[in-house]
Amino acid sequence: MVQVYFDHNATTPLDEGVLAAMMPWMQGQFGNPSSRHGFGRVARQAVEVARERVADAVGAHPSQVVFTSGGTEANNLAIRGMAAVLSPSQVVWGSIEHPCVAKPCLSLKMQGWALRPLAVDSAGRFDMVDLAQALQAKTGLVSVMLANNETGVLQDVAFIARQARAAGACVHTDAVQALGKIRLDFAALGVHAMSLSAHKVYGPKGVGALVLDKRVELLPQMTGGGHEKGLRAGTENVPGIIGFAAACELANGRMEQDGRRFGLMRAELEAGVAALGGVIFGARAQRLANTSYFAFPGVEGETLLMALDRAGFAVASGSACSSGSAEPSPVLLAMGVEPELAKGAVRVSLGRSNSMQQIEEFVRVLQVELERLRTLSAVAVM
Amino acid sequence: MVQVYFDHNATTPLDEGVLAAMMPWMQGQFGNPSSRHGFGRVARQAVEVARERVADAVGAHPSQVVFTSGGTEANNLAIRGMAAVLSPSQVVWGSIEHPCVAKPCLSLKMQGWALRPLAVDSAGRFDMVDLAQALQAKTGLVSVMLANNETGVLQDVAFIARQARAAGACVHTDAVQALGKIRLDFAALGVHAMSLSAHKVYGPKGVGALVLDKRVELLPQMTGGGHEKGLRAGTENVPGIIGFAAACELANGRMEQDGRRFGLMRAELEAGVAALGGVIFGARAQRLANTSYFAFPGVEGETLLMALDRAGFAVASGSACSSGSAEPSPVLLAMGVEPELAKGAVRVSLGRSNSMQQIEEFVRVLQVELERLRTLSAVAVM
Repeated sequence: MVQVYFDHNATTPLDEGVLAAMMPWMQGQFGNPSSRHGFGRVARQAVEVARERVADAVGAHPSQVVFTSGGTEANNLAIRGMAAVLSPSQVVWGSIEHPCVAKPCLSLKMQGWALRPLAVDSAGRFDMVDLAQALQAKTGLVSVMLANNETGVLQDVAFIARQARAAGACVHTDAVQALGKIRLDFAALGVHAMSLSAHKVYGPKGVGALVLDKRVELLPQMTGGGHEKGLRAGTENVPGIIGFAAACELANGRMEQDGRRFGLMRAELEAGVAALGGVIFGARAQRLANTSYFAFPGVEGETLLMALDRAGFAVASGSACSSGSAEPSPVLLAMGVEPELAKGAVRVSLGRSNSMQQIEEFVRVLQVELERLRTLSAVAVM
Repeated sequence: MVQVYFDHNATTPLDEGVLAAMMPWMQGQFGNPSSRHGFGRVARQAVEVARERVADAVGAHPSQVVFTSGGTEANNLAIRGMAAVLSPSQVVWGSIEHPCVAKPCLSLKMQGWALRPLAVDSAGRFDMVDLAQALQAKTGLVSVMLANNETGVLQDVAFIARQARAAGACVHTDAVQALGKIRLDFAALGVHAMSLSAHKVYGPKGVGALVLDKRVELLPQMTGGGHEKGLRAGTENVPGIIGFAAACELANGRMEQDGRRFGLMRAELEAGVAALGGVIFGARAQRLANTSYFAFPGVEGETLLMALDRAGFAVASGSACSSGSAEPSPVLLAMGVEPELAKGAVRVSLGRSNSMQQIEEFVRVLQVELERLRTLSAVAVM
């Protein structure tokens, strides 16, 4: 059976063009960019060209791009690194942040920081009244995501950054899910640091970046050979970095066209979901065009995911990274969704290989599976 | 001009067989191992098979292997992670360690640790009398490398680990340069943690591992989605991990044969170097068969490196990671080499593509370049 992949917020296939850009660096060219001989200089130049291309794609200067092993490292580096050079005060982060932002923020408690999660409304948008209240207390660090991985809800990070800066805080945004789906402009966002990942945009796994306002001090979290201007040690993942740059450029070239297509497909999907009695999360907010997050009352998300998988459709229940946990999604709980309903959450995140025909087939399969599961559960409670 | 690559301790070309093992995971298979659908489960299984293969290659159990973004991350994780759960006491590390061990050790001072570098003798071997003296003071952590990246000198880590354990310390070894060149047996070494890197053994850049005795507590340095049993967050670099496993297996299958060949080539090289008046560092010690580190009195290493590069031979001067620095190698200074001579250091590190013919040609070119440089410098001082 052909599997249809509807989980592009978890990861994406490597684009053929990205792989083609990487291949010469896996066959033939292989120097260590820190080496001074010809092999090394060629690699160094390629890394620096890639840095320019990534910077260009997100409205930053090449000197602001610090390559990392991925989004998780970028988020950890931003939060742990900025906090380490500040006197402990309050850290504010979104109650819907990815665990790789939330956990580093929580870890600051041991260093004397006061913890202050930022509330969201029922559509998953940050609550600006709560932000103003939070910023009454002396705040060193604010971390708010640009697009939520589960709901796709977009946040007004530029506004939050202005408020937070006015209150004297450093501001970080996790833009991992936004990259390649909406235009990113680091300068216009006005944040001090922004995290990116390659494998969410048809680039390779194992590479990402922290874009950094160089006026901000940051304590490196990995030290050694002084790579990345001393901010991140370790031999550069040359093919990965080159693939990341290629992926950023490809995404920028087709973002609007893809987004329109995803939007039409999602509208069809959500019409079907609503007709089958589904509740769509974040629907009132501006969202990434590719993301749909919904639940059917009385149907467990995990069970539905497995049923859909057997029927040929790969979707997520809650966040992929939190899989293994039967707890309802903290994102939905923060939005005030009842735990019972939240346990039903299933996410469809569309990508370039998907088609309207797949959506239509999916809605048909969804109907069949829902009927089957509801019958089973009706039998079970008899 | 065909460039001859003599810098395999800096990095190695990706083996064709390794690339072949990675390709299906860059074309077709792409799931996130944390996803529960079929795409994710296939990726998870591949990562776990790779974990078994890496573990097998180094005498460890799969549950002991924590994948990282490379050797630098593994070293940082070991030292920072183990120190974070211990009460500060003394940290002992080799005076010849790579910066990505030395710097994390030095950073422990801020957390109240006493710093104690371990001396080496003039051949670059750890001084066991100094070790005994160091261990008189309460010592929480000892980090000693298995094979030095510059000299290739091998250390008796098993002996050091026994002494250090008897003194109640946790023991880490940086085995990045040893992997693939000598047999590694984690259990027999008796250390608590061992760092590995893929790109030094014809594997991909951007992946490595920390092999860890699970009885040792370790504070993760990157937190998030709970990957790698909570010890290292971040979506797994699936192609990289699979390539790493393939590289380990390939290395284990040809290690002795390659080593014998490198040994013969190095003997020829060093006979030539000695005949030209060169001083060979660490020659009295047991060394990796592929590594030769030498200097010619009065000839600067950096200048010789550039001259050899122009003549078609890629060598290193000091450690690649420390390039950009005109300081003499700390490794040589620790061995008691005069700074003036140390500044002349040039490293040849052989690899699979090298041949005896290249060595013979190199010695001829070396003679020509040395004569030219000595003439120039004689003119310069006139």
